[in-house]
Formats: sequence, C-alpha cells, structure tokens
Amino acid sequence: MRIGIYGFGSIGRLVAREAVKRGWEIVGAIDIDEKIIGKDIGEILGFEEKYGVVVSRDVEELIDADVVVHATSSYLDKVYDQILSLVRLGIDTVSTCETLSYPYYRYPVLARKLNEEALRYGVTVLGTGINPGFLLDTLPIVLTAPFNIVEKIVAKRSLDASKRRKSFVEKIGIGMDPEEYMKALREGKLTGHVGYAESVYLIADAAGIHLDKVEERQEPIIADKDMIIGEFKVRKGEVIGIKGYGTGYKNRKEIIRLEFHAYLGAKEYEEIMVIGTDYEVRWRSTGTPGDQGTVAVVLNIANIINDLSPGLLLMTDIIPFKPFFKH
Amino acid sequence: MRIGIYGFGSIGRLVAREAVKRGWEIVGAIDIDEKIIGKDIGEILGFEEKYGVVVSRDVEELIDADVVVHATSSYLDKVYDQILSLVRLGIDTVSTCETLSYPYYRYPVLARKLNEEALRYGVTVLGTGINPGFLLDTLPIVLTAPFNIVEKIVAKRSLDASKRRKSFVEKIGIGMDPEEYMKALREGKLTGHVGYAESVYLIADAAGIHLDKVEERQEPIIADKDMIIGEFKVRKGEVIGIKGYGTGYKNRKEIIRLEFHAYLGAKEYEEIMVIGTDYEVRWRSTGTPGDQGTVAVVLNIANIINDLSPGLLLMTDIIPFKPFFKH
Repeated sequence: MRIGIYGFGSIGRLVAREAVKRGWEIVGAIDIDEKIIGKDIGEILGFEEKYGVVVSRDVEELIDADVVVHATSSYLDKVYDQILSLVRLGIDTVSTCETLSYPYYRYPVLARKLNEEALRYGVTVLGTGINPGFLLDTLPIVLTAPFNIVEKIVAKRSLDASKRRKSFVEKIGIGMDPEEYMKALREGKLTGHVGYAESVYLIADAAGIHLDKVEERQEPIIADKDMIIGEFKVRKGEVIGIKGYGTGYKNRKEIIRLEFHAYLGAKEYEEIMVIGTDYEVRWRSTGTPGDQGTVAVVLNIANIINDLSPGLLLMTDIIPFKPFFKH
Repeated sequence: MRIGIYGFGSIGRLVAREAVKRGWEIVGAIDIDEKIIGKDIGEILGFEEKYGVVVSRDVEELIDADVVVHATSSYLDKVYDQILSLVRLGIDTVSTCETLSYPYYRYPVLARKLNEEALRYGVTVLGTGINPGFLLDTLPIVLTAPFNIVEKIVAKRSLDASKRRKSFVEKIGIGMDPEEYMKALREGKLTGHVGYAESVYLIADAAGIHLDKVEERQEPIIADKDMIIGEFKVRKGEVIGIKGYGTGYKNRKEIIRLEFHAYLGAKEYEEIMVIGTDYEVRWRSTGTPGDQGTVAVVLNIANIINDLSPGLLLMTDIIPFKPFFKH
C-alpha cells in the first residue's frame, strides 16, 4: 500500500509511524508548517535514517498514493479545499476531520458538493476515527445486530486526560478558570470534543430515522480541591476537563444518548447499552487509547477504501447493520 | 419486506413472530413435519386469528418472497438441496445453518458448488446467527478496528443452559451419564455447540491469514453434587452442560481462541479481548439471548440482503474491517 499523508502534525506523524510498522510505503507528506517543510520525514519521526520523503506544501506530491490520510482540522469548512484538491487528483481519501464523519448536519451544502466532486472524479472520501467514527456510533450500531427491535441506544466514553497528548489537554482547557473556559468555548477558541451530533446522526441515519431534535451540550469539570495528577497540578476551582453529551429524540422520547467524559484522573472505559423491546445488553470495555485508536481505524479503512464505491461515504454506508427501531 | 420461512421449527417460528413485529409480511412457510403441514401459521404461533398462510412442503410456495430465512439443520450436507432449491427459485437466502457460516472448511466442494449456483441465478446466500455469525467472529473482527497490528484475539461466551429452550438442553446432553455423553458426541448423536472452527476461520479469513492448524474440542461439565437449577434436577456425576473451544495457530502461536461454555447455572456473558502490539482492550457484556439473538441477526441481514452482490457470501465479506496481523 502506498500512502500519502496530508497534515503532518501529531496525528499525521502517528499515521506515518504506524503505516511503516505495517510495511506500507509513505509516498508523500503535506503540511503548511514552515518549520518542517523540506525536512525528511524520517528525521521528524526520529528514525535512524532518512526516509527519502520530505514534507512538502504541494499536494501534487501525493499523486502516487493509493490512498491519502488527511489529518488537519476538525471543521469541514476549514478543510474543504484541502480534501477537494485530493479528490481532483483522483486519490481516495480517509480523513480524521470530525465533522466529515457526518457532514450533512453542520455542512449540508459542502457535503453535497464534495459528494458530487468525488463521484465526478471516481474517488472515495470518508471521514472517520475513534470518536466520532467508531466507539460511539459504528460500534453501537454493530451491537444492535442481536436485537429485533431497538428502543434506545446509550453509549458513554470516559478517559483520563492526564494520559493524553498536550494538544488534547489544551483543547479541553485543563487548568483554566471556569468562566474564562465557558467564554472560550462559546467563542470557539476552545472546542472540547467535536462530534457528539455527528455520532447521533450516524446512528439515526443507519436506522433510517428522522430525528425530531438533536441536542449537544458540553461543560467543564471543576477541581473540588488542589490536585496533582500525573504531570498536572491543578488548583481547587480550576478546570480539570470536560463532560458532554449528544442526544437524539424521536416522538419526544430520547432514543439515542452519547456521553463523553475527559478529565484528569477519570476512569478509562467505554460502555454501550442497547435496549430492545424484550431485553437489553450492556457492553463495557477496559478503555481504548484515543490517538492510536483513531490512527488504527483510519489505517484499517484506508486498507479497504480502494474497493469501496466512489462518493462521499459514511461509516454507516459500509457496515451492513441497520438498527430496527419501531415508531 | 416479504419473507419466506424454510423450516418451521422453534427458530423458524420465532423468525415468524419477530418478522410480524417488524411489520413484515410472511408469504410462505415450508416444513416436512406432517403434524403441521396444512395448518395456518397463525394457529401454530398462537395468534388470535388465522394468518392466511398454511405450512407447505412445496418450496415453490415461497416464490413471492424478497428473502427466505432458512432454519432447519446445522450441517450443510443435510441442507444443501434445500438451499439449492431456493437459489433456483431466484430467492436471496439467509440461513441459520451453522456450518454454512464458513462452509469452505467442512464442505469445500459443496461451498464452491453453492457459490457457483448462486452466481448463476444471481442470488445471495449467507449463513449467520448469533454464534457462529456474530458474537465470536463478526464482533471480534469489528473490535479490532482500533488496533493497528493485532497479535491475538480471545473471545468467550458463557450461558446458563437452564434459561434455554428444551431442544438446546437436549443438544448439550444435560442429565446424561458422562461416558454415554462422550459416546453420543463421538457418534454424532449429540452435537453440542457447532461452529467453533467456523468462527475461527471467519476471523482468519477476514485477516487474510492462512492458519497452520485449527483445533476444536468439546467436553461435558459434570455436576459435583446433586443440584436443582430452575426446572432441572441433576444428580452428582451427571452432565450439566458443555464447554468447548476452537483455536487457530499461526507460526506455532495460538492467535485466535474462542471458547463456549453452556451449563446449568453458568454466568451469562460474552468477553472479547483484542491484544495488539501496543495495548489490549477487553470488552465484556451482560450476556446476549441465544435464540432471539440468532433470529435478530438473521432478520437484520435479511433486511439488507437484496442489496448485496450475488454469490455465497460470508459475514466477513460484508463488514469493512480486516484485522491486520503481522507475521
């Protein structure tokens, strides 16, 4: 497999490392950061030898790739032109862009245009990752397979922010003053977790349900005392992380509820409950690493994307399970 | 959806009930049991009114079905002609036949012929159910999505036989003398669980791995004292259920291990562990009902089978995940 990487930040570099472990060939790496343009990716990754590929700003360097992994930003409006440039080169693309996992919600016009362009160029584009993309959407959908009629899906992911990389810690505002935090969240300077609604819509879309209402909410979790967790020192009253949820309603009933908790010292697990008309099943995990999980999901999809039909696809287009809700 | 049912025994009847709950139409029901042929299926199912379909021995009664659910026996050689008759009518078929979930292992000649016939008639045939079909094969494969490189997959299902239907209890020999039990197992008079190797092969096939060796073993579990569990009275020394496993080896290492325990009073759960090169994740459930689970998996696949490509398909042909093992 010959892979190109668009966005050579922390996720792009992890993609490169893991692709090399698979024995795949990296044919190009694109970034806009002047500090790394022109550098050999082997040097950046700390390999013993040069790899023979330098970071470039020119997307045409990816022309020989069987697939490109795109990992730059969470919002489709910011990355639309980047992905379009890959489509126009005729390269199948898997992106970690969270809002691309269900782009018809926040960016319906861009989504339709991107689908059209992908079809025109015979290219497959798919947004995925660990969350959104797998743990709170694809996997809950798969777990409805043993249910004839589903009443409700509840899924939760909880992770210990002290075990995550620095950019994640910054994204969720650890150490900030709560008011300053809420302001930053409102102004979009902080994002917290992106993708609650996308996961809700992925499930609803697989089930063929038109939801009456989708809600998203996110709030800081505050230290109730001075704490030292891992490398982090936080004072009482400061932010130690976030919790949030996305919900989907049908006929005034909450039928989908997805929660995400990420704070210093949180227990690590996923929990998925499917409630059917006759029985319910709860699955609980020991916790899935976030970044490595995202990279693995992306590489696993990259591995098969050349066989998929062209267009802007969703994870739910490629899994054969459709929760059957009765309404 | 217009559904036909081939085999109106306990599973076929449950299929009928659950299909009706979905609002699907049952267009025909086939069986060889003289006691039910000619009877209205509504009567057999205990509905308040006749349904308007009588059990027939003539497969052509299913001609109007969009899909047929086939539920008669565990062994492909016994049901091959039944499935072929459906294929020749041009009807997509989902079967609960355990060995059809990976027929290339026990019945390679029949599997290839069935695939050829399905392609000739433009029909899709797929064997699935809760186990084999989902819990110990499809689901573990899906759970490898967050792993870049997989080292080993271990999955176990444990169920309380006292909560299962009579025919299952007979199949696993509860109350028998252990020696008599082993003899019956050897002679094929008792089957226990069918499908250990099929699940192992489904995983290996998804991963594209040629296994060096596949093992299956099954043995009785013996009461260590007189017991009363639910409606069951068992004396010390009698069989209270079975345990068994299927394993797959590559380069002399066990890389797939699937266990199944079913005995009176057993705890009910599934547990799936994926061991990657850098981390492992264990998922554990509160337990999935067997018969209802099988029926649900089958109906969920029946719901989409008209959209699949023709041929004899496997569950692994329709899920987009392929565990990446390094060897």
